Amino acid sequence: MTPEDLKSLIRTIPDFPKPGILFRDVTTLIGHGTGFASATAMLADHARKAGAQAIAGIEARGFIFGAAVAARLGLPFVPVRKPGKLPVPVLAMDYALEYGTDTLEVDPEAVVEGHIVVLIDDLIATGGTAHAAVKLLRRAGGVVNKGLFVIDLPDLGGADRLRGEDLSVEALMEFEGD
Amino acid sequence: MTPEDLKSLIRTIPDFPKPGILFRDVTTLIGHGTGFASATAMLADHARKAGAQAIAGIEARGFIFGAAVAARLGLPFVPVRKPGKLPVPVLAMDYALEYGTDTLEVDPEAVVEGHIVVLIDDLIATGGTAHAAVKLLRRAGGVVNKGLFVIDLPDLGGADRLRGEDLSVEALMEFEGD
Repeated sequence: MTPEDLKSLIRTIPDFPKPGILFRDVTTLIGHGTGFASATAMLADHARKAGAQAIAGIEARGFIFGAAVAARLGLPFVPVRKPGKLPVPVLAMDYALEYGTDTLEVDPEAVVEGHIVVLIDDLIATGGTAHAAVKLLRRAGGVVNKGLFVIDLPDLGGADRLRGEDLSVEALMEFEGD
Repeated sequence: MTPEDLKSLIRTIPDFPKPGILFRDVTTLIGHGTGFASATAMLADHARKAGAQAIAGIEARGFIFGAAVAARLGLPFVPVRKPGKLPVPVLAMDYALEYGTDTLEVDPEAVVEGHIVVLIDDLIATGGTAHAAVKLLRRAGGVVNKGLFVIDLPDLGGADRLRGEDLSVEALMEFEGD
């Protein structure tokens, strides 16, 4: 499948989660067997070229792509979780949302000091969540050198923000004008 | 890797999420590259033998194993989600927890009428969550003939409960006495 074929598998839902937002929904891509396998293969290729020694994914849609890539490459998968889910003492990071804040957590023992960790999520918009995940994984000892996304919304600036943190960023597709 | 090797990768946390519970934690298994790839291959083998045409996984740890299996087999992945996450009208199912209730949701368009859907989750204990997921996937039109789990806690009866719903159930390992 070409990147254009993959892009045609994304469903756009107007006014979700609130009026004026076009929600780019990966459910229809992962619901297409060949599409999901192709997206996984493309992401895995980027991760391999980055020298990944572990793959991190952000709960919950980032688990879908991140775990598929990790299993394909035979690499450890590091879940970046919502608060209260991990049964061990965690490293935690608060980050700003448009309204209020949210928190991500990582089990520090899940990251090997000095290992190259590639971060995967389904979509990058303003990049606040990805940025917090990168800081957390680095604090746990990981060398996070790449962020991989299925969808980039470049007008919202998240990919550029991550690049400013010394990461390279790749996405399988972009939607402009969002 | 043998099933015994995989079992040795599970971390046991006492008194989580509350006193008296031994929490069997898959984080350490998915954090082991070869272990995670082996578990994925074993689950995929069971799913293939069941004739799977789609793989469903329960948010959030079930996404990790379910998506890895789906991508490996080139099959659609159907996320069984917590409430409020899907941007479309959903089928929803409430189910009882020890205290109170919880809800699962599925996008009915993610399931093709008459397709064989294999359900994957990390662990089966009393089986309440898996049971609700099976009912939901069947209501969406899926033929759910198998439940696959990394860990079964047979003393809690969940696997037997699912078998009573006309499913076959397989797990990669059991912990007795829980």
